[in-house]
Amino acid sequence: MIIIKGGVTAALGFQANGIAAGIKKSGRKDLGLLYSEVPAAASGAFTTNRFQASPIKISKAHLKNRLHQAIVVNSGNANCANGKIGDRDALLVAEFIAKNLEIHKGNVLVASTGIIGKYLDTEKIRKNIPKLVKGLSKRGGVLFSDAILTTDTKRKEFAVKVKLRSHSAAIGGACKGVGMIYPNIKTERHATMLCFITTDAAISKRMLEEAIFEAAQGSFNMISVDGDMSTNDAFFILANGLAGNKTIFSKNGDYHKFLEALKFTAKELAKMMVKDGEGATKFVEIKVAGAESDDDAKAIARMISRSTLLKCAIFGSDPNWGRIAAACGASGVGFDSSKIDIYLGDVKVMSGGMSVKGYDEGRVKSVFKKDNIHIKVDLKSGSHSATAWTCDLSKKYVDINAEYPT
Amino acid sequence: MIIIKGGVTAALGFQANGIAAGIKKSGRKDLGLLYSEVPAAASGAFTTNRFQASPIKISKAHLKNRLHQAIVVNSGNANCANGKIGDRDALLVAEFIAKNLEIHKGNVLVASTGIIGKYLDTEKIRKNIPKLVKGLSKRGGVLFSDAILTTDTKRKEFAVKVKLRSHSAAIGGACKGVGMIYPNIKTERHATMLCFITTDAAISKRMLEEAIFEAAQGSFNMISVDGDMSTNDAFFILANGLAGNKTIFSKNGDYHKFLEALKFTAKELAKMMVKDGEGATKFVEIKVAGAESDDDAKAIARMISRSTLLKCAIFGSDPNWGRIAAACGASGVGFDSSKIDIYLGDVKVMSGGMSVKGYDEGRVKSVFKKDNIHIKVDLKSGSHSATAWTCDLSKKYVDINAEYPT
Repeated sequence: MIIIKGGVTAALGFQANGIAAGIKKSGRKDLGLLYSEVPAAASGAFTTNRFQASPIKISKAHLKNRLHQAIVVNSGNANCANGKIGDRDALLVAEFIAKNLEIHKGNVLVASTGIIGKYLDTEKIRKNIPKLVKGLSKRGGVLFSDAILTTDTKRKEFAVKVKLRSHSAAIGGACKGVGMIYPNIKTERHATMLCFITTDAAISKRMLEEAIFEAAQGSFNMISVDGDMSTNDAFFILANGLAGNKTIFSKNGDYHKFLEALKFTAKELAKMMVKDGEGATKFVEIKVAGAESDDDAKAIARMISRSTLLKCAIFGSDPNWGRIAAACGASGVGFDSSKIDIYLGDVKVMSGGMSVKGYDEGRVKSVFKKDNIHIKVDLKSGSHSATAWTCDLSKKYVDINAEYPT
Repeated sequence: MIIIKGGVTAALGFQANGIAAGIKKSGRKDLGLLYSEVPAAASGAFTTNRFQASPIKISKAHLKNRLHQAIVVNSGNANCANGKIGDRDALLVAEFIAKNLEIHKGNVLVASTGIIGKYLDTEKIRKNIPKLVKGLSKRGGVLFSDAILTTDTKRKEFAVKVKLRSHSAAIGGACKGVGMIYPNIKTERHATMLCFITTDAAISKRMLEEAIFEAAQGSFNMISVDGDMSTNDAFFILANGLAGNKTIFSKNGDYHKFLEALKFTAKELAKMMVKDGEGATKFVEIKVAGAESDDDAKAIARMISRSTLLKCAIFGSDPNWGRIAAACGASGVGFDSSKIDIYLGDVKVMSGGMSVKGYDEGRVKSVFKKDNIHIKVDLKSGSHSATAWTCDLSKKYVDINAEYPT
């Protein structure tokens, strides 16, 4: 596997575009379209929030179809909490795209991100669709990546090439964050995380569903910016088969190579989201080892990743590791607190549940001054582990969210 | 029931004191003592954090005894994550007090709040105990209330008088917050919340245990400042019987009057904590009605109360109620999202899961500019309800916790 340039149009046969349709008051790009030149196998993983945005409902329904060719995304409006009007609007947008691309509306997937509880101006979207479709191109990947952003400060793209048995396949994606980020997305099943991955690998829809589920677990489902789960989180994958490999129908060697590359891509995109988390000045990796189960390790890692107090301490470069211990204990996981070791960077600050006497405080302070902070908790009770990612909580985060344009 | 002046020494037979023992670098009061002139029935409710501070362990053990006469509290050091050394230190402090008061050490309860992972300077405490004991007085309630504070900006006291069948009894308390506040305390079973309530009512230890459990549920267990559960949360009650009422041994009329007054006192103290929450500029009451069960209502109210995004919006007076809907849906409670109504103050902004067209945005904005904000969610699926309290998330909160003196 090698890292290559590009994003959603890195794989063969994908085109994209992104334009400003006037949904965002700022006049920035807010409407994106991703298109596969040939019908593709598709799968999606969506928020488990009980409030589901209309585009989520429509995409889930459309994913029951066998093949898909387009994904349309607007930013600036989540089209959530708009009831049946919202559902109709999301479907209308899919219909506009289908008509212009001359494909079936059921083969179009939709996604939205932005403010909750405002009706979507579908007339603005309808008027702009001819322009959006006309501008589709291989080089439009960056335009698409820009159009999906909200409070993001950076475009987020990543792509790899993986050698399968007969041919090589590309996997490329784009995503956006960067607030209301605490995804828990499930297959078959707002800011919001949106991620779009395309591949020219030939793989069956069923195998793609397995792969997206696996890929979401160790990536998007392990990040937190603010602990707020969105109503609009969505992760889509389109696989158009143009790489020419022997179609992956089972969990064979090619499946595992493909899966490994997909997981890597998803993880890199997830980390980009956290690094660009609203107001973030630091990136934090939290590893929990020695757990009795994967679920225990994940629960503890995620609880630490959403400790408001720890995130403030990290913003202030204050190595207040007691807040890590408190978060472990608040996770609901049963463990023996007299066994736990905690490391800040490579410095052990807690050993067997006790503060380490005379640890190098200067070194610990220098660890917390870095842009990349590594925290490790060893429960010493088993062989399971998990890694979560978060950012610090800065005053800028408060500014951004105290004045979100409602 | 009438509200009366005072706090932990409002009831007959209680004395208190608070001094500076040099535990806090600031030189402020950090050692408090609460004393009942006669042995009292006692009960406690403690954090369910898996990491339990040493004073919690010692107090739990001592509560197995029948009667208690003193509670000693230090602020500035949580005595947590100090292993067996911490346990020994907490016990030493109890022993110092017992010796000076000439009572049994098992009749002394202990509590601590402050930084985690630093050893307690018991020598400083030992040296100051004669002064602490000597200064005990009825008027010392305020000194005690001051000595337990950490990042609090205000003393927190409350007291009531309740008429029982034969005599009237007083119930008075003091508490401290105001960060790491997301208590989930259980009977028998860190800032940190600490609450000390005294009463001269005559009530059996068993009935007191029932009452403290009931009182914690609708008060401390429904507040959040930052969603971080402490390792040191503790709620103590001492009942010395000096009011002269017929001892409450069962859930009779007097028990229910007593319980009502205790619940009211606990709720008022809990609300004071939230109002003084770290960096708080606004107080928020969240009511969830129409739930299928109390547990559902509580889970949703508490999830809304810890939405970082909503709390930032409230700081900015931005009525971004979509964040309320998202928090409901993230609670893990199953409900029909097409039934939900949401009110900001008395303005209905969501009806049947949909944004209300043309609601009075000006009025909603004025609601969010107030110091006291009321949010109501009606699930319209049952008859159960719950109320939670929180504060906004300000830039000052970040300042306070980015520079906590470690």
